[in-house]
Amino acid sequence: MSHDLCFTPATELAALIRGRTVSAREVLDAHLDRIERVNPALNAIVTLDVEGARAAADAADAALAAGEPVGPLHGLPVAHKDTHATGGLRTTWGSPLFSNTVPARDELVVARLGRAGAVRVGKTNVPEFAAGSHTFNPVFGVTHNPYRHGLSAGGSSGGAAAALAAGLVPVAEGSDMGGSLRNPAAFCNVVGLRPTPGRVPSWPAPLGWSTLSVQGPMGRTVADVALQLSVIAGPDLRVPISLETPGAVFAEPLPTSLDGLRVAWTPDLGGRVRVDPAVTEVLMAQLGVFRDLGARVDEDCPDLTDADEVFGTLRAWLFEQAHLEKSRRTPELVKESIRWNAEMGAKLTGADVARAEVAHTKLYERMVAFFERYDVLLAPTTQVLPFPVEMEYPTEIGGVPQENYLEWMRSCTLFSPTGCPALSVPGGFTPDGLPVGLQIVGPPRADRRVLEVGHAFEQATRFGDRRPPL
Amino acid sequence: MSHDLCFTPATELAALIRGRTVSAREVLDAHLDRIERVNPALNAIVTLDVEGARAAADAADAALAAGEPVGPLHGLPVAHKDTHATGGLRTTWGSPLFSNTVPARDELVVARLGRAGAVRVGKTNVPEFAAGSHTFNPVFGVTHNPYRHGLSAGGSSGGAAAALAAGLVPVAEGSDMGGSLRNPAAFCNVVGLRPTPGRVPSWPAPLGWSTLSVQGPMGRTVADVALQLSVIAGPDLRVPISLETPGAVFAEPLPTSLDGLRVAWTPDLGGRVRVDPAVTEVLMAQLGVFRDLGARVDEDCPDLTDADEVFGTLRAWLFEQAHLEKSRRTPELVKESIRWNAEMGAKLTGADVARAEVAHTKLYERMVAFFERYDVLLAPTTQVLPFPVEMEYPTEIGGVPQENYLEWMRSCTLFSPTGCPALSVPGGFTPDGLPVGLQIVGPPRADRRVLEVGHAFEQATRFGDRRPPL
Repeated sequence: MSHDLCFTPATELAALIRGRTVSAREVLDAHLDRIERVNPALNAIVTLDVEGARAAADAADAALAAGEPVGPLHGLPVAHKDTHATGGLRTTWGSPLFSNTVPARDELVVARLGRAGAVRVGKTNVPEFAAGSHTFNPVFGVTHNPYRHGLSAGGSSGGAAAALAAGLVPVAEGSDMGGSLRNPAAFCNVVGLRPTPGRVPSWPAPLGWSTLSVQGPMGRTVADVALQLSVIAGPDLRVPISLETPGAVFAEPLPTSLDGLRVAWTPDLGGRVRVDPAVTEVLMAQLGVFRDLGARVDEDCPDLTDADEVFGTLRAWLFEQAHLEKSRRTPELVKESIRWNAEMGAKLTGADVARAEVAHTKLYERMVAFFERYDVLLAPTTQVLPFPVEMEYPTEIGGVPQENYLEWMRSCTLFSPTGCPALSVPGGFTPDGLPVGLQIVGPPRADRRVLEVGHAFEQATRFGDRRPPL
Repeated sequence: MSHDLCFTPATELAALIRGRTVSAREVLDAHLDRIERVNPALNAIVTLDVEGARAAADAADAALAAGEPVGPLHGLPVAHKDTHATGGLRTTWGSPLFSNTVPARDELVVARLGRAGAVRVGKTNVPEFAAGSHTFNPVFGVTHNPYRHGLSAGGSSGGAAAALAAGLVPVAEGSDMGGSLRNPAAFCNVVGLRPTPGRVPSWPAPLGWSTLSVQGPMGRTVADVALQLSVIAGPDLRVPISLETPGAVFAEPLPTSLDGLRVAWTPDLGGRVRVDPAVTEVLMAQLGVFRDLGARVDEDCPDLTDADEVFGTLRAWLFEQAHLEKSRRTPELVKESIRWNAEMGAKLTGADVARAEVAHTKLYERMVAFFERYDVLLAPTTQVLPFPVEMEYPTEIGGVPQENYLEWMRSCTLFSPTGCPALSVPGGFTPDGLPVGLQIVGPPRADRRVLEVGHAFEQATRFGDRRPPL
């Protein structure tokens, strides 16, 4: 029973709890048991709040017994990304500078999950300040891939992805500047959505109008991701870019047909990125699934000119703002790749930023125009397969050396400044059992559409059903 | 008859045309006649398209006769701000560099007005590149105030405000970076709304995410402004910041009671700006109107710390992007105040811009918090009364010298970076007959609320009914 509870989709688990077939406390205890057995080798959850979780689960059961109205996630265990502030629970940002920080209050995404009834279990591991797509830091060490110990879980929401894949929690959220919801989803065979900026309002945030980093949902199924999105999406007046559509629209059932859908597929982002042939091979084999579901599939790619430069400039600009001061004051406590990027940001002129924003705008407009011809774009989520945890990042792809620590993440980073929602769904396995992610990109604000396409593909392929060997 | 047509509100005129009480052609000819008589001394409309307008008016009448569906502005003459591109009609931006430019296509706001049925009559005068709040440029010269020849009509939408006040057109749109929809409305006794950024999507725009400059409606009544807003507001996917609410919500009737409204009033933006005592005196006398309408009025002001610096930095940053190249290449063809501001922008670092954006975010959050306690904030629209057209800008207020050409516009500029909608409505007259504007500011996205409050005040006071001595 407890094993099944830990791999039951969040959508079903919520119904079981609501119908009092199982109690929130039973569900919690099953997950705590699994965390105790599986997490030590995985290191996905880095802070646990057993007492708090038990009290919350008992309160959830009492509320149900009393017939009180309950939220869509009532009684579901959730683990929050350790870069997201949790009131009264240690939040380290993966940095030795904050290894004992206990925020006073939940930030908005955490509060929304709590208000929806989720039971806070703990925090998921991150790279230092969520920088980079491999989850290790000096406070908690590295997170392993549930599908193969010794390999990376990806990042920066690597702890979240690994925890979901391993059945440690049914619900976990993350954030994505350059792929941090997509890359770990791909590495760990789960689902991650980088929503349209403003879909999931981030608050507090130092730069209220910035669209590069977004928060969003992860889950083991697309429907679970949609369920979570339904409670973390929706406007908040404190967030100037927050979209007005209520989150509830994402809770409506997802169709499974793709009849008449116009699909573009690009194996290498129009020749812009090098992709491990093993990744390409797995994904190429899936194109027929889309055709079988009624879609037309053409090889095509939007013009991603300047996407690298826009991402690079804006990331450096954000890093200067966020990290330069501490990088200079305590360089020994900040990892080199962050210091490098913050110093790069310190060299930017206002005119450099303006030029990047002009190119950013043109890129956005080209994406909108591209999606007049196609409903969605398919691409590899990652250029590489999960790599050994000892590497800070892959220094080569297919034998070709990479320029810097961002180079191998470009299949994600190139889409980050487009303003488009991008979903990673399980796209199959290599012959030796490593998961591969399929990225589904839609026009700005079409978060619902990418979820629909992802759901139809998932229902036809069921790659997400293959559990990790834990 | 023709005189009355020229001062009939757009809302009523549209109904008269739709009901075929008058033809679009009659309405047009009445306005063309008045333009011919009044405009030469005023210089509000600087490019006329008589033939095109007559053809459009005849087509509008034919469509009605044929029973075709028509838009909300069907048959209403409109003049477009000369910084807004009009397809096939000269658009100069008030610059000798573009004195003979004829754009190929309408920009979005112009296209939306046309699609709503408005009949394009011509273009309204602007300061060079809409920079500054006094309407003069080397291409067309200065626009006079309809209420007193020889005084400024304000700016930068000065031609639009003067044209509306003088009965030359019933509909005109403008734009507002630092008060350009509010200041000329106040100087010319008409209504101007700086909407929430994204409410009226601007396209094309070089910096798609920038919120400092917005386009918006002007009119002789608040209901006319609401009617125009109903057709120029609403999402456009090409504009990433465009708000999702359809424009149609602004066409619903405006209430006239202010029962229970919590109103804050500040005569001097919390001591931050110097205001001509003649302006303050006129506005102070109106507070009783709000109380009579059922509102509670307290003297209070949000904390506008850093609003000056945010506005100044972001304006300079935008000017570098928009104007530096031409300022250096052809300095003799660009006015000094633009070159000064573009060069200021060229000195900014990326970190300066980031610091401004951090302060911008905090300012926005303080406004949202302020508006938890109040429904709207009242303030003077302008710090000064209309001044002689020969001055480039007022160099002193009440005998106190001003630092630069932005200093006298701060009652508007301080609200520009707040993300809040701000409406200027006729607020009364000085003893010698100069109009004074009352600024009504609401929380972000509450464009409808500021229109409601403005409408109730207008209906109670009818200052807009006093026609200019033309």
